[in-house]
Amino acid sequence: MRLRTSFKAGTRRKLLHAAISLIREKGYSSTSVDELCTQAGVTKGAFFHHFDSKDALGVAAADHWSEVTGAFFDNALYHRHSDPLERVLGYLDLRKAILEGDIAEFTCLVGTMVQEIYNTNPNIREACEASISAHAGKIAADIAAAMKRYRIRGSWSAESLALHTQAVLQGAFILAKAKGGPEIAAASIDHLRRYIELLFQPVTPEKTEAP
Amino acid sequence: MRLRTSFKAGTRRKLLHAAISLIREKGYSSTSVDELCTQAGVTKGAFFHHFDSKDALGVAAADHWSEVTGAFFDNALYHRHSDPLERVLGYLDLRKAILEGDIAEFTCLVGTMVQEIYNTNPNIREACEASISAHAGKIAADIAAAMKRYRIRGSWSAESLALHTQAVLQGAFILAKAKGGPEIAAASIDHLRRYIELLFQPVTPEKTEAP
Repeated sequence: MRLRTSFKAGTRRKLLHAAISLIREKGYSSTSVDELCTQAGVTKGAFFHHFDSKDALGVAAADHWSEVTGAFFDNALYHRHSDPLERVLGYLDLRKAILEGDIAEFTCLVGTMVQEIYNTNPNIREACEASISAHAGKIAADIAAAMKRYRIRGSWSAESLALHTQAVLQGAFILAKAKGGPEIAAASIDHLRRYIELLFQPVTPEKTEAP
Repeated sequence: MRLRTSFKAGTRRKLLHAAISLIREKGYSSTSVDELCTQAGVTKGAFFHHFDSKDALGVAAADHWSEVTGAFFDNALYHRHSDPLERVLGYLDLRKAILEGDIAEFTCLVGTMVQEIYNTNPNIREACEASISAHAGKIAADIAAAMKRYRIRGSWSAESLALHTQAVLQGAFILAKAKGGPEIAAASIDHLRRYIELLFQPVTPEKTEAP
């Protein structure tokens, strides 16, 4: 998702958007405070007026990411479906549709950060975890409603399937980065969509083997 | 996968194993040449005798990772199954079984590196892509054989499903890092296994809705 920063945006917001942009391009560790200030068009004094450290900006960037992406998905059209299964599938269709532009623009800030800092920066890790779990929680609610509507009972839970959707998306981004384009990520979302469709088809006959 | 480095291992191998260990713990960018030398127990002069730069070590580490993990999976017991579908499912069971120890020990070197450097270091990106694709290629061969045996034709290909297994694993590692433990990754592998089982059940009746 591309974030637009207006010329008049406040210093704090400019730094948050610079962080979201630079970290998705080159990772957290190799993004310096100097680069963040240059990209945001603010002084180093202004940076330290708003943030005690680069790590504090990392936490704030994860929280800001949660707010911005949360609003984007809350306002998405798939919520118009009365059938909760259609909302789940519509969510995946949207995730596929927004795989466009540069890789840095469609990949995930918090997945990128937590990959690097999970063991070295517990505050950023927690903010990334909170972002992923809050997003998954909204999808879990639709999955739970769909399970009820279609009387699906599995050895899996709505929460587990919702977190799995996020695992697939995060892994799809890694393969897109390795391959240099979004096609492989779209293919993984297709597999995930097919899995959910299969889960909601209740009959599971025996497999047949070719003679 | 934990790599064991013997006291007598050569300098080059010690540095490769130090890279695999440190990069999985803290990412590529925040791993310095000094730390690599300290962990490997070698001098900086020895480092630059073997590698022109940290980036050269990054490429060599990805290639070494491919060799070590390739040998590990080539020698795994799931290959004993005559049914190729059992080999695919056995592969996933093994991937789940090796989710143990510290997170750094079961996560993926090349997925961690490509997440950070895809846009800034094309040589490392290529080595990571080659590692993921070569591994996926072996799984694709078993999936293709299973599709033939069970007469499965889908809108998906064996290659696409094999790459999807790698996307799920990579994303599962990210969620494990966010959550601080392997349970969530195991749950995603369970979902992937269930998906493949469903794909190989040929009948797809209409879904029924609760009244």
